[in-house]
Amino acid sequence: MSKAIFIRNANQLVTLQGGAHAPLVKEAMSELGIIENGSVWIEDGVIQAVGTDEELLAMFEGRLDEAEVVDASGKLVTPGLVDPHTHLVFAGSRENEFNMRLQGATYMDIMNAGGGIHATTRATKAASNEELFHASYGRLNQFLRHGVTTVEAKSGYGMEWETERKQLEVAKRLNENHVIDVVSTFMGAHAVPKEYKENPDEFVRLLVEEMIPMVAELGLAEFNDVFCEHGVFTPEQSRVILEAGKRHGLIPKIHADEIEPYEGAELAAEVGAISADHLLKASEKGMRAMAEKGVVGVLLPGTAYFLMAESANGRKMIDLGVPVALSTDCNPGSSPTVSLPFIMNLGCLKMGMTPAEVITATTINAAHALNRGQEIGSLEVGKKGDVTIFNIENYMKLQYSYGVNHTDTVVKNGQVVVRGGHLVEELSLS
Amino acid sequence: MSKAIFIRNANQLVTLQGGAHAPLVKEAMSELGIIENGSVWIEDGVIQAVGTDEELLAMFEGRLDEAEVVDASGKLVTPGLVDPHTHLVFAGSRENEFNMRLQGATYMDIMNAGGGIHATTRATKAASNEELFHASYGRLNQFLRHGVTTVEAKSGYGMEWETERKQLEVAKRLNENHVIDVVSTFMGAHAVPKEYKENPDEFVRLLVEEMIPMVAELGLAEFNDVFCEHGVFTPEQSRVILEAGKRHGLIPKIHADEIEPYEGAELAAEVGAISADHLLKASEKGMRAMAEKGVVGVLLPGTAYFLMAESANGRKMIDLGVPVALSTDCNPGSSPTVSLPFIMNLGCLKMGMTPAEVITATTINAAHALNRGQEIGSLEVGKKGDVTIFNIENYMKLQYSYGVNHTDTVVKNGQVVVRGGHLVEELSLS
Ligand SMILES: [Zn+2]
Ligand SMILES: [Zn+2]
Repeated sequence: MSKAIFIRNANQLVTLQGGAHAPLVKEAMSELGIIENGSVWIEDGVIQAVGTDEELLAMFEGRLDEAEVVDASGKLVTPGLVDPHTHLVFAGSRENEFNMRLQGATYMDIMNAGGGIHATTRATKAASNEELFHASYGRLNQFLRHGVTTVEAKSGYGMEWETERKQLEVAKRLNENHVIDVVSTFMGAHAVPKEYKENPDEFVRLLVEEMIPMVAELGLAEFNDVFCEHGVFTPEQSRVILEAGKRHGLIPKIHADEIEPYEGAELAAEVGAISADHLLKASEKGMRAMAEKGVVGVLLPGTAYFLMAESANGRKMIDLGVPVALSTDCNPGSSPTVSLPFIMNLGCLKMGMTPAEVITATTINAAHALNRGQEIGSLEVGKKGDVTIFNIENYMKLQYSYGVNHTDTVVKNGQVVVRGGHLVEELSLS
Repeated sequence: MSKAIFIRNANQLVTLQGGAHAPLVKEAMSELGIIENGSVWIEDGVIQAVGTDEELLAMFEGRLDEAEVVDASGKLVTPGLVDPHTHLVFAGSRENEFNMRLQGATYMDIMNAGGGIHATTRATKAASNEELFHASYGRLNQFLRHGVTTVEAKSGYGMEWETERKQLEVAKRLNENHVIDVVSTFMGAHAVPKEYKENPDEFVRLLVEEMIPMVAELGLAEFNDVFCEHGVFTPEQSRVILEAGKRHGLIPKIHADEIEPYEGAELAAEVGAISADHLLKASEKGMRAMAEKGVVGVLLPGTAYFLMAESANGRKMIDLGVPVALSTDCNPGSSPTVSLPFIMNLGCLKMGMTPAEVITATTINAAHALNRGQEIGSLEVGKKGDVTIFNIENYMKLQYSYGVNHTDTVVKNGQVVVRGGHLVEELSLS
């Protein structure tokens, strides 16, 4: 922690200054606050100065020897990327289902072959705490290699207390042991377990009266999420679950309007959710309600890509004033990826977002979706020393030169953790 | 060249044995010839043995000390990937056009701002041989990091002799200086130059009577390609150009049916082209004609992705018996990528190909599109020692775990040139 880091002379330094208090919307999503020949001085894990190289040279003239210098000339520098929606902690792998699907198998064929979410639930239940930790730690290393320094992680592959707690405990341990910050969300309401199919309200009662209070008491999560969808949880059930979380200090999030229009976006605005996620079938009315309340729309175009579906209408949401963020939705069923840079590219080519907007959507707006707009997501004095350096000249080219991971260097809490595209040795040993 | 390489114990060794004499079609495209716990012995740049690790250990028992061992346990090993369609040798970068397009600019706005193919033509004309070499060499390094060991390269950013020759000479020099094999195609017929707009047949005469004979005489290309499209070259003009190439020993290729149905696929079959490329609008009749004559369909789903268009119908072509290959179409206007692995993923998710088929399409079938089915594209005794090792357990997962470059190690001509995802030092110095 002690040694200062001096990132020098970026071709473009994307600061995103000015968005700490609220997520950026409309035209502000395109205002990247770019400094040419830009530099950043980080010390004790915190950004101490941001400006042109000339300015910073003058400021730190007498202290250059103390700092580790990272030459960013010719490169693009951004805040460390933030992934605000993942199902990081799981066991197993479902490539066989994917292969079946491409060979023409139906959803029912796959379920009959033991696939679907229940495959992951079974594997996650069976896995030890140690196995889950190890598998997820490896995924975090991959996230880091793709420029990501903060990752949200949801439970939800148990839907019974022991496994939900195991997932959240593993996420907590990951947060403590991996340099990436892992932010936890309780999602016991991921599906209705088979044994409650006849009486789903009984499961809602279990969540509300038992699991949510325990999660809060043990300090295992900051957010409470629910899959509000036809055939899963109704808007009424979702409201009950989210309000219960609020009473225990858990901020609401919603998996909303993914498969059918279901007024999930409207509900998010009504209960004061910090984000509504997916939104492929969100109504215009719902989008307007989100815009009015400042609910972040977390869009997941990788999931649509992987499921061969149409993406959410990111362009329209931005135009209506919804603060938009992007995420991998990393999970073994519908989005088995760790590449937030690729998701940014899908944001451009499948949702009509611009190269500037997708940067805002994976930095400051994603930070706001995790209630961390004041700490991360922009390069400003006093914020965490989380920085990603891409081996590409400018932010437009980051999207133009598609299909390639351009991450070169990652600085996390003021320490170089990825260099030349590779994890530094201490990390890769883990 | 002297030291043997022993690649040992792959979780899946994809050999693609048996396709050296003709490209694979229909069900045969799914027959990957997988050996579990597979190993390969390479010496003097040539594959000497392929089999289980047990078999090879027995064969080379007394010689293990002589070989560099590459441990492939837990990994997927395939033939070095082959990219059969690129416009590798160009100068300039057009991210600004891309950004304009996403901000709503029309094609005419972009042309009026000095964009389009003419931007690349101007930059390529202005670039020195040295500059072109350097820029393209860097792209080849990136191809290598994505598992590609053979790349086709077309001229066509001059459409006058000096620049066409410059591009082809640079490609030849790249082939001699870079470990990747660069295969050259003359494509003077990439567009009709402005000065011939009134009299395109005069340009065809120039190609047929002057440029093609000179290309052949100087030994600058193996293939002759034409952009057969409404408003560019008619099928009649294309036939004249391709037949002229044939008289001079240049094998025909066609950019066919990309924007409108134009009987390009039919023409490919008629003139005996080795491949027809793009094919977004190819007719079923044309596909059947290609299948009958064994013309390889080189599909470019990255171009469709980048231009936000529908992809070619790869599924249908395979089902009709067309031997399908995949390529990046690497070029600065419509497909600025070097990631053939990402193209494979688009093959699955945008064209309905299976994880097995996309491997065949980027190895043995791509080799056949370059008239090199006997030398590369499969792991068989006597073939070139070109091998790619992916840091993933199996070929299904290579597609399932999307958006990530899984290339771990690349062996080219029996030498390790990429290790742990990075170019070996000698190469990265260039
Ligand atoms: Zn989710
Ligand atoms: Zn082309």
